[in-house]
Amino acid sequence: MRALVYQGSSDKALEQRPIPEISASTDAIVKVTRTTICGTDLHILKGDVPSCQPGRVLGHEGIGVVHEIGPSVTTFKPGERVLISCITSCGKCLYCRKQMYSHCTSGGWILGNTIDGTQAEYARIPYADTSLYRIPDDDEALVMLSDILPTGFECGVLNGKVQPGGTVAIVGAGPIGLAALLTARFYAPAQIIMIDLDNNRLEVAKRFGATETINNVRSDAAKAVMSMTAGRGVDTAIEAVGIPATFELCEDLIAPGGTIANVGVHGAKVDLHLERLWDRNITITTRLVDTVSTPMLLSSLHSQKIDAKLLITHRFRLDDILDAYETFSHATDTRALKVIIEV
Amino acid sequence: MRALVYQGSSDKALEQRPIPEISASTDAIVKVTRTTICGTDLHILKGDVPSCQPGRVLGHEGIGVVHEIGPSVTTFKPGERVLISCITSCGKCLYCRKQMYSHCTSGGWILGNTIDGTQAEYARIPYADTSLYRIPDDDEALVMLSDILPTGFECGVLNGKVQPGGTVAIVGAGPIGLAALLTARFYAPAQIIMIDLDNNRLEVAKRFGATETINNVRSDAAKAVMSMTAGRGVDTAIEAVGIPATFELCEDLIAPGGTIANVGVHGAKVDLHLERLWDRNITITTRLVDTVSTPMLLSSLHSQKIDAKLLITHRFRLDDILDAYETFSHATDTRALKVIIEV
Amino acid sequence: MRALVYQGSSDKALEQRPIPEISASTDAIVKVTRTTICGTDLHILKGDVPSCQPGRVLGHEGIGVVHEIGPSVTTFKPGERVLISCITSCGKCLYCRKQMYSHCTSGGWILGNTIDGTQAEYARIPYADTSLYRIPDDDEALVMLSDILPTGFECGVLNGKVQPGGTVAIVGAGPIGLAALLTARFYAPAQIIMIDLDNNRLEVAKRFGATETINNVRSDAAKAVMSMTAGRGVDTAIEAVGIPATFELCEDLIAPGGTIANVGVHGAKVDLHLERLWDRNITITTRLVDTVSTPMLLSSLHSQKIDAKLLITHRFRLDDILDAYETFSHATDTRALKVIIEV
Amino acid sequence: MRALVYQGSSDKALEQRPIPEISASTDAIVKVTRTTICGTDLHILKGDVPSCQPGRVLGHEGIGVVHEIGPSVTTFKPGERVLISCITSCGKCLYCRKQMYSHCTSGGWILGNTIDGTQAEYARIPYADTSLYRIPDDDEALVMLSDILPTGFECGVLNGKVQPGGTVAIVGAGPIGLAALLTARFYAPAQIIMIDLDNNRLEVAKRFGATETINNVRSDAAKAVMSMTAGRGVDTAIEAVGIPATFELCEDLIAPGGTIANVGVHGAKVDLHLERLWDRNITITTRLVDTVSTPMLLSSLHSQKIDAKLLITHRFRLDDILDAYETFSHATDTRALKVIIEV
Repeated sequence: MRALVYQGSSDKALEQRPIPEISASTDAIVKVTRTTICGTDLHILKGDVPSCQPGRVLGHEGIGVVHEIGPSVTTFKPGERVLISCITSCGKCLYCRKQMYSHCTSGGWILGNTIDGTQAEYARIPYADTSLYRIPDDDEALVMLSDILPTGFECGVLNGKVQPGGTVAIVGAGPIGLAALLTARFYAPAQIIMIDLDNNRLEVAKRFGATETINNVRSDAAKAVMSMTAGRGVDTAIEAVGIPATFELCEDLIAPGGTIANVGVHGAKVDLHLERLWDRNITITTRLVDTVSTPMLLSSLHSQKIDAKLLITHRFRLDDILDAYETFSHATDTRALKVIIEV
Repeated sequence: MRALVYQGSSDKALEQRPIPEISASTDAIVKVTRTTICGTDLHILKGDVPSCQPGRVLGHEGIGVVHEIGPSVTTFKPGERVLISCITSCGKCLYCRKQMYSHCTSGGWILGNTIDGTQAEYARIPYADTSLYRIPDDDEALVMLSDILPTGFECGVLNGKVQPGGTVAIVGAGPIGLAALLTARFYAPAQIIMIDLDNNRLEVAKRFGATETINNVRSDAAKAVMSMTAGRGVDTAIEAVGIPATFELCEDLIAPGGTIANVGVHGAKVDLHLERLWDRNITITTRLVDTVSTPMLLSSLHSQKIDAKLLITHRFRLDDILDAYETFSHATDTRALKVIIEV
Repeated sequence: MRALVYQGSSDKALEQRPIPEISASTDAIVKVTRTTICGTDLHILKGDVPSCQPGRVLGHEGIGVVHEIGPSVTTFKPGERVLISCITSCGKCLYCRKQMYSHCTSGGWILGNTIDGTQAEYARIPYADTSLYRIPDDDEALVMLSDILPTGFECGVLNGKVQPGGTVAIVGAGPIGLAALLTARFYAPAQIIMIDLDNNRLEVAKRFGATETINNVRSDAAKAVMSMTAGRGVDTAIEAVGIPATFELCEDLIAPGGTIANVGVHGAKVDLHLERLWDRNITITTRLVDTVSTPMLLSSLHSQKIDAKLLITHRFRLDDILDAYETFSHATDTRALKVIIEV
Repeated sequence: MRALVYQGSSDKALEQRPIPEISASTDAIVKVTRTTICGTDLHILKGDVPSCQPGRVLGHEGIGVVHEIGPSVTTFKPGERVLISCITSCGKCLYCRKQMYSHCTSGGWILGNTIDGTQAEYARIPYADTSLYRIPDDDEALVMLSDILPTGFECGVLNGKVQPGGTVAIVGAGPIGLAALLTARFYAPAQIIMIDLDNNRLEVAKRFGATETINNVRSDAAKAVMSMTAGRGVDTAIEAVGIPATFELCEDLIAPGGTIANVGVHGAKVDLHLERLWDRNITITTRLVDTVSTPMLLSSLHSQKIDAKLLITHRFRLDDILDAYETFSHATDTRALKVIIEV
């Protein structure tokens, strides 16, 4: 089969690989029909993720058809359409029993990281019963439920306690920030203020339902947020970039009693200004997505409460996946959000 | 001033009364600009509410302008526009300090019940600082925030734990059931099933966002709900009628783990089938509205997350309030939901 | 092996049965070392539980040693000591993924009900990885964690929202009511009022930490509770009997804003006095134990935050299990709480 | 009257001052019977609190007798015994209505800060109805409820989500850390690990119920905590010192899914290691005490669920308050926790 393989030193290639085989009784082999590229894949290519070694098939998102199941798999049969969760969950360990699948002691984020992933014709999915979800058809919008929508929703919206009538600021209007925006709307907040450096993305945010936008190249975002919120700051600040400046911006615009929900992947420490914040009754949260909200998101997609397709800007064939990477990694120029790879 | 006065024996009249005066330092006198009639007013007229004695000015809803304030009132000044909450809250007692204003030891529901109410040119509002809310203008939609929207939201939606992707059934498509419907949409549930005997009201419910409707004259509502929910029942059942049959219907259509939120005013006991429900992990709640959500609802109205005007079907002058009662009390024929009285 | 078998018509016998065998790859066979008798077993003998047919080995509680495992079991090995949960959980279904193991679509309460149980030398435990818990030794107190302590804690204390400084009434001082009492103390409520007809049990409750007791043969319990709580009623009322009179007593003694947590197994409907309760802001809950708290209870037992041994009054050998049933079923005379059967 | 007055430049003196007078209708004048000194008072003397200017009577804790009330005060009468809350709450503003009294727009922490305080024979208490609590007697233990116990409980224990069976580390065994320890026990956690540099204080912590102690002069506290928690870290880490090193220690010992509850008053920013914590599903909270738990703590004290007296080590007469400051500010030598000033 064809598979996109990480070569080390920023390199990758579409290679021929053998179709994966069942190695544990709880495995399933899924024939991938559609996959996508994540910002994390770009991090791997930069060498930021040491757990992912050269030779690894990349990708942790996708939908497909069950091709083969191990003898212990009871929930799925060959031929059934499935969504692949970016998080593998054994369903048995201390963390899985607390619904914190991200920290599953033998799973978590392993696809396209410590085991071969989904940017290939076939993928082996461990703990298939608790890591796949049945889907009705091959709708490309479903690919958004592998990672980006549960991440925006769980790490940003749920952790950030978005509420009806509340005020939300989202720092970063990339795919994850926009996924947070789309899912924040589940709770009908009064204001969703989107902050980014890129006017194109801010225009997209407006179309997705942002009530206000701020380009923080040109203006003092904290000051602008204060003036938009009667001087109080926001109830929820969602950090969707992953650098110190954007996290510290969240510290500046949070209201007393508010919550900063970190979604960004950080490579460096940040300054936490407890000398200003110790008495402000704020909450800060971090989270690797648990994908506990996947059934709810499937239900919301099915009932048209969310239009996940909005996040998809480009489509490629697997044979052109290197072009897809090129497009996705130059998002400012290409205006790419999520790119679909048809396998 | 003119005031609608309860005469006892199902009777009422528009009388001349003196303008009320400040009697405690925390009182305000509000010049009422718009008021409305509540189903509870009809209950009073039937003699169902013994705490309300003949001679009482009816009404516990309305908006207006502050006319005069007692010496301890610090939040409002004469001339400011205000929303009158149906619940009076002292802000000091055990219950007020727990945000359970409905059980305020010297307040609660007293307007148009144990003290004179708002169907008059002026009303005395005790504990004005904690029982009035500042509003921007005289928009008639704001009258819906005195009682019906916080009641539907707090007693039905919040107590019923409506969630994104969840399933909701609302039994009773009268004004309160429709207020629950409008505010349930804050949480983007996948299904909102409306159940009523009146096809007109079910059509209204469809326009307000119900995903399915059931006329339970003609069909077995519990069976219909089961077939709409893959045999599981609903996560939230909101009882918005107040008779045994509708409450017991909720018992029949609730899913394991679900919540029955009672909103209806009941005059008789109901059968609770614990022999079937003891092991179903369900929750049942009752509540007199606390109006703790009023600031949030004001914010939601302001940000156009809810269109409260939809609930208003008729308008009358205060001089014609007897006609307004006539229209409101024959809702099946008149298709009345809420009627606005312009004072 | 020897096993206690339900014969139908109130009858039971200690029979010889073959040792159970692995029938699914996720099964384990456990050599039982200690088991006990539950009030539910007496219900079965009375014919109240139609799902349990004659020929069934009774019992859903116990500790033992893993004897054999199916090929998919990964968490336990033969020779390890385990606690058997009264609830079997597949770990995969909709309900298990929501931690509502009681409603597991292929598990739930099946041991000693729809499959053979634990009052035997060996028991087959389906879904062993998610239905057994590792334990350090053969301490008989651990048997209390199969059912009675999680039931009292989850259905009574957690559902009842027992809080520091709060007031609790427990109606019924049998084993389940006393388990609720012991675990209510985790939250340091200010008052725990125990209500029963049996003075001996009330004395036991005092020793277990009840702050007040009421014998409701001799006094009006609701009135007594009101006088003990400054006229307010209790924040939490736990029903631990299962008849209409005791549930309706809970309706009489609950404070505004309080919670009635039903634990009792009911055979008949009860009167819910919504004509009095509709505006009292109360919550009523039902629950079949999910055993989600088992790891926490193991930790609490290990750290000596609870003395589970207090619940054990009698000990028997398996050969004398008919005597054990005799003793347990005449608890008023024998003063039995839980009886340990040593296998 | 005699009053302890801040002179600026680390100086203070017992001066003669006029008895305060009612200046707003909601004020009460309280004759103080017992007060105490807080770590914050030492911060003021160091010049760390610029809002507190020279000439200010210090102190924000105490109990006493109502001496005089303003015309709007309805809850208290002269002659009644009261607890003075360190937080003044108007009961009307946006924050008070959300139970966030710490951020009351005209109150909050003002006593002994922006208005004269309680280290005096009399104190003026604004918003008396919502800032005083009725008490049964002059028990010195009640002084612990003005600040230290609600602070330890709300900022540490409630924010830290201490749970039955859980694991807790408290960094700092001063009065606040010990108050957190005493109130953490309301929730029966399995482990409470106390960390400090002072062996005497660690011995006190043991007597107060710590299950383990670590002197972090001599050992690597994070490593020690890991070995005490099977390598997982703690569910709750309470920071009760207020310097970067202790906050960062909390970052090192928190388990995935755990909560760091900051109680300490910080004068400098800290390093938040998001490069390690972004995917650990942790929560960090800050809070100025709201004193919403005061009624609950009064109830717990009354029902002997907490022995607040344990925190009191020394007693002085008001005339000797300078000695009291001397003793309190040299706590390592004097082994002082809280010192009572009898007025």
